[in-house]
Parts: sequence; structure tokens; C-alpha cells
Amino acid sequence: MDLILISDYVGTFVFAISGTLTAAQKRLDIFGAMMIGFATAVGGGTLRDMMLGVMPVTWIRSIDYFLIVMLGVVVTAVFQRFVLRLKSLLFLLDAIGIGVFTLIGIEKSTLVGINPPIAILMGLSTAVVGGVIRDTLCNEVPLIFHKEIYATACIMGGIVYFVLAYLECPTYLIHGSTVICVIAVRVLAVHLGISLPIISLKDKNDSN
Amino acid sequence: MDLILISDYVGTFVFAISGTLTAAQKRLDIFGAMMIGFATAVGGGTLRDMMLGVMPVTWIRSIDYFLIVMLGVVVTAVFQRFVLRLKSLLFLLDAIGIGVFTLIGIEKSTLVGINPPIAILMGLSTAVVGGVIRDTLCNEVPLIFHKEIYATACIMGGIVYFVLAYLECPTYLIHGSTVICVIAVRVLAVHLGISLPIISLKDKNDSN
Amino acid sequence: MDLILISDYVGTFVFAISGTLTAAQKRLDIFGAMMIGFATAVGGGTLRDMMLGVMPVTWIRSIDYFLIVMLGVVVTAVFQRFVLRLKSLLFLLDAIGIGVFTLIGIEKSTLVGINPPIAILMGLSTAVVGGVIRDTLCNEVPLIFHKEIYATACIMGGIVYFVLAYLECPTYLIHGSTVICVIAVRVLAVHLGISLPIISLKDKNDSN
Repeated sequence: MDLILISDYVGTFVFAISGTLTAAQKRLDIFGAMMIGFATAVGGGTLRDMMLGVMPVTWIRSIDYFLIVMLGVVVTAVFQRFVLRLKSLLFLLDAIGIGVFTLIGIEKSTLVGINPPIAILMGLSTAVVGGVIRDTLCNEVPLIFHKEIYATACIMGGIVYFVLAYLECPTYLIHGSTVICVIAVRVLAVHLGISLPIISLKDKNDSN
Repeated sequence: MDLILISDYVGTFVFAISGTLTAAQKRLDIFGAMMIGFATAVGGGTLRDMMLGVMPVTWIRSIDYFLIVMLGVVVTAVFQRFVLRLKSLLFLLDAIGIGVFTLIGIEKSTLVGINPPIAILMGLSTAVVGGVIRDTLCNEVPLIFHKEIYATACIMGGIVYFVLAYLECPTYLIHGSTVICVIAVRVLAVHLGISLPIISLKDKNDSN
Repeated sequence: MDLILISDYVGTFVFAISGTLTAAQKRLDIFGAMMIGFATAVGGGTLRDMMLGVMPVTWIRSIDYFLIVMLGVVVTAVFQRFVLRLKSLLFLLDAIGIGVFTLIGIEKSTLVGINPPIAILMGLSTAVVGGVIRDTLCNEVPLIFHKEIYATACIMGGIVYFVLAYLECPTYLIHGSTVICVIAVRVLAVHLGISLPIISLKDKNDSN
């Protein structure tokens, strides 16, 4: 449980960094960076809580998330060059983040009696909606819609969760396997350069 | 009632197709298409439910919407050429969809004691917000803000609803007339090429 | 209290005008202008209420906001040239609007037991999220993220609120000082041409 909370904080921190870096690319001011860092870090959980009816939403009830996001934004703004050199570390922490976010989303959904496929979707949305909001606010088509295996990792983790739950495995095993599965799929996909097939109108083939 | 549920499903299916086709134009991957198909199909109802305080939101409580959206996305991805040839059918189904979505939005609002003009607005938002999210995620100014009579149809349907309700007509007549009014206005407007006046700063006239 | 309500209405009215003017620049139709005027005027409060769990959200429970927004849109559409000449007045009314929106957001948050920093954030979000939605729907990077001191004014007002509340000042003094502080910072910042530092990747310096 403690480990989940710590990972949740780590994920929030890394997501805030990711939002700040995107804001920096767009040459936003420091407030813009804070807002986008914030939206990136808590956006997924906020939408999930609002859809589930868990309110006030998580980050509002505790000041921890706010402080962690501010820390992430300030650290990134001050040590930009240093942060940019840590790409591999950031990538790994991000993978841990989405793994834990997926797990938290699934757990919160099952608590209010949501069925497994929808719970996996809520886990996925916890993990990816922050990035979607970040890209939309920065006027880009969301990265995860066309570039990277991100969602597949979350969905596979979610399937692992419910398979192990169905087999009545102990909680720590379910939790650990879910997060590790998300991380493993994400890391492997990027290292092997795997991406999803593009869906596109086959205009050119029509001339055949 | 059954007819409403079936039309709701049809609307969801068609909205999922519309989202997938837009995603395909943007050359997104299959996951991006699923997310956008999903957001298009359930986005309007989700915002409505969150604003009304009806939670968990509708599509979370039943797995039907999820399955219908997935079906819509997969069918579109696999049979793209065939789907694109069905434009007239898709247009008609879409008109039925917004008609039913408008009706459902109004019904849900009156259930929690919302007054008529706002209930019509909730019906409208049920019908059009999905498309607004679709276009925003795909980095376009929402189509319905500048191109097509879409909202007017929903608003007119909503007015018919409350006029007939005021006249104490039987429920089936209110429901049927509302949906048919939306469909009729939408189909007529497109066939007659009617569109709303553009609002713009009259820069050129200033020189007079 | 009456003064707050009146200022709330004034803020809503001015935000609707601002949304309509942005829609006009994008050459949207009259319905698009209405939707964007509406989203600009009530977007911030809607997100705040949904995150806090205050539902149905404020503008749904009373028809006043709807009527005020429609009035703002129609007045702007009809008297465009005249409205555009009132820039200074609109700017002042807008400053009053964000001041009152900040205050209302903080008050609503403390009512449900939110701690001060997060309450200030909710006040801020009440004041600025409408504009963020407006710009996002119009396919622009939100103005407040890169151009103007807007948020800083709200945050300073929020700090004044809690300092005076801590000193157990009378309510009218807390409310008045909060709103006046927001207005003063906003007006001063614009008149003195103060803006926040831009955060950006120091690509060019890397060559040193």
C-alpha cells in the first residue's frame, strides 16, 4: 500500500515534468507550464473520479499532489538542461507512473462495482488522459494517438489484474504483476520499436 | 422505450464510426481511433451526466456501450472502403442518433428537475459534445461551430418536446415528435444547403 | 452578497462577449459563437463544481446564467463595431469578473472543507478555465499560458483572502479586498506591461 502511494507520487512528479517540458517547447510562461504540468499530472485521475462520482476528486482532498506538481515544475524550469539529460531515467519513471496509475484506476473502479472491461478502461484513462490534455492544450494531436505503444501496455496490465484476481491470487501478487506487466510491455515496445498499425483511408489503392 | 434504447445504440455505433473516420483522416493508429471513436460516442452523455450529477456516468454502468463502440471502430477499420460508400446511410443514422441523444438528454434533465430551456441545452450537449471532443482531439475547430445546421435541429426538437409536454400529449407522441423533428430539420437543412450566418468582425466595412 | 451576485452576472456577461469575439475572429457561425460564449462564461465554474462534487452545476440550476450569456452573444453579434470600441471598459469588466470568479471559487471550496492552497487553485480555475476552453475550442494555445498576467492576479487575491481570514477580519473586508486585489494586480500588470518569464528549452545556449 505504501509502495503504491510512493509510486503514485513518483508518477505525479514525472507527469508534471513531462507537462513542463512540453510547455517549454511551446515557449509558454511559467504559469502556463504550471497549469499544463498540473493538468498532465492530475488530469487522468480527475476525469476518472468525476466519471465514477468520487468527489471531491483525489488531488483536491490532499495538498500532497499540489506540492509534488509544483516541485516537478520548478525543478524542471530551473534545471532544464540537467533534466533533459535524464531521458532514460524519466522514461523509466514514466513507465512506473502509468503502471501505478493503471492499477489505481482499476482499484477505484472495482470499489464502486464497475465490471472488469470498463474498470480496465478507467485504469487506462487514469494513465493516459493527462497526456491527452497536455497535448490538446498545447495545440497538438495527442502523441499517444499516433506514435507510441502506451495504451496497449495499460490494457495488458489490466488483463493481468483480472486474470490473477479471478485465480484468487493474493493482493500483493495482483498489484505487483499488474504494474510490472505495464512497465515491461511499455519498455519492450519502445526498445523493440513496436508501434500500432496506422488506420488510414486507402485513397491511393482506390485507383487500382 | 425499447425503441429509444435501440436508437441510442444505433447512435452510439454511428458516432463511433464517425470518430474512427476522422481519426483515419489524421492517420492515427488503431488505439487512437478507438479512443476518439469512444470519446465521440460517449462524450456528450458523459459531460451531461457529470454536470447533472448522475454518476457513475451511463456508459460505465453497462458494458453495452463499450462493446458497441469497439464494434463500430473495428468494422470501420476493416471495411473502410465499404463504409465510406455508405455516406447517405451514415448521414441518416447520424440524424437518428442526434435525435435520440437530444431526447435522452432532455428526459434525464427533467428527471432531476431542470427547467425547460436548460434541459434543451442538456439535450443539445448530449448530441453535439461528442463531435466537439472528436474535432478538438484531432486538432480542428469543431465542425458544428462553422459548417452545418446540427444544433438548430436539436434545439427545435427540444422546443417540440416541451410544447407537446405542455399540451399534455401522450409520452409516445412527445418522444416520437421530438426525434422526428430533429431528423427532419437536419435532413432538410443539408438537402436545401441551409447554414447559419457567419459571425465575423466587419473589418472591410470599416473602411467605408 | 447582492454585490457578489451582480458582479458574477457582470463577469458572466463579459466572458460571453469575449467568447463571441474570439468566435468571430475564427469566422464561426452564430451557433458556434453561442457555444463558445457559453463555454467561456460557465466553463470555469462547471469544472470547479464537477471537481468539488457540487451538482447539478450552478448554471444548470438557474436560468439566469443562460439568459445572460445569450444576451452577451446577441449584443456582441449585433453591435460588433460598437463593442470593439469599448475595449477599455471590457477590460475593466473582465478584471472585475475574474476577481469575483476567484472569490466565488474560494468560497465554494472552503464550504466543502478544502484547504487554502487548493481553494486558491479552485478560485483560479473558476476564473481562467473558461478562457482556456475558449482558446482550445478555437484551436489556439490558451492565451493565458503565454501572454498575460492573469493567473498571478487571481493567486494574489486568493492569498489576500486567506491572510485576512486568518486575521479574522469581517467578511465584507475579506471579500472586498480579495476582489480589489485581483483587479488591481491585473490592471497594473497590463498598464505596466509586466509579463511572466517564458520557460523554454535553452537550445541555443547549448552550443556555448
